[in-house]
Amino acid sequence: MKRAIYPGSFDPVTKGHLDIIKRSASVFDEVIVVLMRNPDKNYLFSEEERLDMLKECCKGLDNVTCDIGEGLSIHYAKEKDAKVMIRGIRAVLDYEYELRNATANMWINDDIETCFFMAKPEYSFLSSSTVKEIASFGEDVSGFADAYVIEKLKLKYQK
Amino acid sequence: MKRAIYPGSFDPVTKGHLDIIKRSASVFDEVIVVLMRNPDKNYLFSEEERLDMLKECCKGLDNVTCDIGEGLSIHYAKEKDAKVMIRGIRAVLDYEYELRNATANMWINDDIETCFFMAKPEYSFLSSSTVKEIASFGEDVSGFADAYVIEKLKLKYQK
Amino acid sequence: MKRAIYPGSFDPVTKGHLDIIKRSASVFDEVIVVLMRNPDKNYLFSEEERLDMLKECCKGLDNVTCDIGEGLSIHYAKEKDAKVMIRGIRAVLDYEYELRNATANMWINDDIETCFFMAKPEYSFLSSSTVKEIASFGEDVSGFADAYVIEKLKLKYQK
Amino acid sequence: MKRAIYPGSFDPVTKGHLDIIKRSASVFDEVIVVLMRNPDKNYLFSEEERLDMLKECCKGLDNVTCDIGEGLSIHYAKEKDAKVMIRGIRAVLDYEYELRNATANMWINDDIETCFFMAKPEYSFLSSSTVKEIASFGEDVSGFADAYVIEKLKLKYQK
Amino acid sequence: MKRAIYPGSFDPVTKGHLDIIKRSASVFDEVIVVLMRNPDKNYLFSEEERLDMLKECCKGLDNVTCDIGEGLSIHYAKEKDAKVMIRGIRAVLDYEYELRNATANMWINDDIETCFFMAKPEYSFLSSSTVKEIASFGEDVSGFADAYVIEKLKLKYQK
Amino acid sequence: MKRAIYPGSFDPVTKGHLDIIKRSASVFDEVIVVLMRNPDKNYLFSEEERLDMLKECCKGLDNVTCDIGEGLSIHYAKEKDAKVMIRGIRAVLDYEYELRNATANMWINDDIETCFFMAKPEYSFLSSSTVKEIASFGEDVSGFADAYVIEKLKLKYQK
Repeated sequence: MKRAIYPGSFDPVTKGHLDIIKRSASVFDEVIVVLMRNPDKNYLFSEEERLDMLKECCKGLDNVTCDIGEGLSIHYAKEKDAKVMIRGIRAVLDYEYELRNATANMWINDDIETCFFMAKPEYSFLSSSTVKEIASFGEDVSGFADAYVIEKLKLKYQK
Repeated sequence: MKRAIYPGSFDPVTKGHLDIIKRSASVFDEVIVVLMRNPDKNYLFSEEERLDMLKECCKGLDNVTCDIGEGLSIHYAKEKDAKVMIRGIRAVLDYEYELRNATANMWINDDIETCFFMAKPEYSFLSSSTVKEIASFGEDVSGFADAYVIEKLKLKYQK
Repeated sequence: MKRAIYPGSFDPVTKGHLDIIKRSASVFDEVIVVLMRNPDKNYLFSEEERLDMLKECCKGLDNVTCDIGEGLSIHYAKEKDAKVMIRGIRAVLDYEYELRNATANMWINDDIETCFFMAKPEYSFLSSSTVKEIASFGEDVSGFADAYVIEKLKLKYQK
Repeated sequence: MKRAIYPGSFDPVTKGHLDIIKRSASVFDEVIVVLMRNPDKNYLFSEEERLDMLKECCKGLDNVTCDIGEGLSIHYAKEKDAKVMIRGIRAVLDYEYELRNATANMWINDDIETCFFMAKPEYSFLSSSTVKEIASFGEDVSGFADAYVIEKLKLKYQK
Repeated sequence: MKRAIYPGSFDPVTKGHLDIIKRSASVFDEVIVVLMRNPDKNYLFSEEERLDMLKECCKGLDNVTCDIGEGLSIHYAKEKDAKVMIRGIRAVLDYEYELRNATANMWINDDIETCFFMAKPEYSFLSSSTVKEIASFGEDVSGFADAYVIEKLKLKYQK
Repeated sequence: MKRAIYPGSFDPVTKGHLDIIKRSASVFDEVIVVLMRNPDKNYLFSEEERLDMLKECCKGLDNVTCDIGEGLSIHYAKEKDAKVMIRGIRAVLDYEYELRNATANMWINDDIETCFFMAKPEYSFLSSSTVKEIASFGEDVSGFADAYVIEKLKLKYQK
C-alpha cells in the first residue's frame, strides 16, 4: 500500500489545492493532507479553522485524511510510514523553491520521494494569498474556493 | 495496483534516467519504461539497441518492464491501463516543456496523471545528447551511464 | 485612430490566437492580423489555406482584417501606418524570445510599440504545433481550434 | 476613445516608469497614472510627495493625468471607464508576478485588458528600490530618475 | 596582480560558499571574502561569530583573507583596489537578482567587473537559510557546512 | 599569470561579444578568443572570414589573441594551459544552457573554471543570429557590430 502526504499551510484551502488532493488520491492508495505548524508565520485563520475547512472540503474522498503536523514535513512523512510527499507546481518561481526543498529532503531522507503535480491551467495563478487579497476587497471569490470556505472568508472580512 | 509508464527516447539511457526509474519503482507498484517510436527523429542507436540497453540496465528491478510504444504516450498509458505517466525535470526549460505536455495530456485524457520527479542535483545537467556529445570526443563518460551503455557508446564512436 | 498589427504564421490559427485577436480588437480601433511570409519555414497549410482559415475565424469581428506580409513585421507595421505590434505570451520561454524581438524592433524603429497580452490560462499550453501533433494522431482537437479549422486539419491528416 | 490606467507605487517614479508612461501615451488616447494606496506598505515618500513628483515628471505629456486610487486597481479602472491596464515587465520574476495578477484580473472583470510593455534594456534593472538603495549610500542616481526626483531623494537622505 | 572580493552575509558560511571561495582563489591572485554589514537584516550569528567561522574555514587557502565591509560592496571593492567582484549562482531566481545587482554596479563603477561562478550541482540547493532551517530541527547538516560551523550551529540551537 | 579562453562561433562577432572580450581582458592577464570548429553547423561566413573579422575587431587589445580550435573547448583550454573559460550570459535561456555546459565541463576537468559575465543591458538581446536576420532585410545594423563587420555583412547580403 502506497501512502502519500500533502503538506501545506492551507490558509485557506483553495480549489487549486483540492484539485491536487483529488488527483493524488486517484494515484496513491492513501493521502494524508497535513497542515504543518509554523510558529513563525502569521495566518488569517486559526489552526482549528484551517483544519476544519480542509476536512469539510475533503469529505467525499474516501482515501484522504486530514491532520496537523509539526517540525519538518519529511519527518512527519517518515513517522506516518509514507513513501511520498506531494507538491503542486504552478509556475517557475514555485518550481525553483520546490526544487530546493525536494533536494534538501533527499539529503535528509532519500527513502521518501517528492512527486510533483502541475496545477491545472485554470488554477495556475491561484494561491491562498491571492484568494485572501481579492476577498478582502469584498470581491466574489466563488471560483477560487469551495462554498464552505467562501462563507468563512466572508465572516473574516466582515469583522 | 498502481501502474505507471515512463516514456522516452533513451538514446541511450543515462544514469539520470535510471535514477528516475529506480525512484518511481519505489513509489508505484509497477513501472513500464517505454521507448516511444518517433519516425521524425534521428537516433544514434537503433530501436533494438536502445531497448536492449534499457533492459540490461533495469535487470535488477523486479517491478520494472521495458517496452516499445507508438503514437501518443497517453494512448499507450491507457492501453496498458496505467494511471500515471512519469517525467523527470532537470531545469526551467524542461519544466515549461513538460508543463505544456502535461496540460495537453489532461485535455486528451484526464484520467491519467503526470507525476514529476526532480532530477538529483548530480544529474541535473545530464541528457542523452550531452552524453553523446562528450563521448563523441573520446572523453570518459563512465559517470554518466552504466558500464553496458558505455561499451556501446565506445563501439559507435570507434567506427 | 490607433491601428495595431498582429503578425504570425497561423499554421493553423488556434483558439489561443483568436482570443488574443478578440482582446486586442477591444483595445485598439483597428487590428490587422498579418500572416508573415517566411520562405525558410515549412508549413502544413499553404499560404492561401492559412489566410482562408484566418478570414473565416475573424468574420464576426468588424475592426479586424487579415492580410499577408513580407520581410520584417516592423516594416509591415510602418507601411500600414500602425502604431502597435501585438504579441501573445504564454510562458517564460515565449517571454524571453519576445523580449529579444521587441528590443530589436525598438532599435529599428522606436515609433512603433510592441504590446503584449498574456494568454488566458486555458490556452497557456496551446500552440499551432501542439494542435497539429495531437490532430496527426487522430485525436479530437475541437477544444483547441474553431470548427472550420478542425475540418481542414481532418482533411490534411486523412490523406 | 481608448483610456488606459498605469497603476503603481511610484516611491519614487523612475526613468523606467517614465519610459513606460511615454510609450503608452503614444499608443492610447488617454493615460491615467494612478498611485494606488496600500496601507500595508511602508513608503519612503508620502502620498503627496509621490503624487507631486509624478505630476512634475509628466508635465509635458498632454494626454497623461496623475491620480490617487484605492482598493483593487481593476476597480479603479472600471470606475474611470478605462479599457486597459498598463504594466511594464523587466524580467522573468516580474513576468510571473504580473501573469498571476493579470489572470486574477481577468477573473474579476474580463472587460478590462492588461497590456504589457517590455522595459527598454537600459532600464531593465531599474526599480524604485534600487534607486533608493543606491541613493541612500550618497551615490549619484541621475541616470535613474528625473532631476526633480533626484533633488527630493537628496533631501530625504540628508536628514 | 588581480585582486577579487567575494561579498556576502555568511550567516553561516556553507560548503557552497567554500566551494566558490576555493574556485575563485584558483582563478585570481588574491581573494578577499568580505562580510558586508547590513544593519537592516537580522542574523543568527553575530558579526564576530560569522567572521570567526569564515576565517576558520579559509585557513588553508593562502591567497584568501577575510574582512568586514560597510556600505555598497562596489565601494569596498574600489577601496581595496579590487578589479573583480565574485558571485555564485545557483538558480534562475539567483540569476535575476544577481543580474540586476551586476547591472546597477556597472552604472556606478564600470571599472570593476562582476564574475559569476555556477554552484556545483551538489550545492545548487544550499543556502545559509536552508542550513539554519534544517539545523533548527536538530537534523544532521554535516554535508552542508564545515565541522567547525556545525559545532556553532549546534550550540545556537541547543539554547 | 592567468590565461583565459573565450570560445564561440562568432558568425559574425557582435558588439556584445566585443564587450565581453574587453571586460575579460581587463580581468585576466591574457585572453584567447577561440573560434571552435563545428562541422555540424552551417555558417554564413567561412572560418577564415570569421577569424579575420575577430582579429580586426580585437586589434587594439594587447592581451587578446584570436585562434581556431577543434573538439571540446575544455580540451582546447587545457592544451593552452588556460585556467578559465569565459562565457557571456544574456538571459535565462542562456543561463540554463550555460549551466549545463559548465557542469559537464566540471566533470571532465575540474581544474578549469568557467567564469560568467552578464551582458550589458544594451546588448542583452543581441546575438549573431539577430544581427544576420536584421541585416538580411537590408536594415541598418551599425549599432550591433563594428564597421568592419557591417561591411562584410553588406557584401554577403548583396549577392
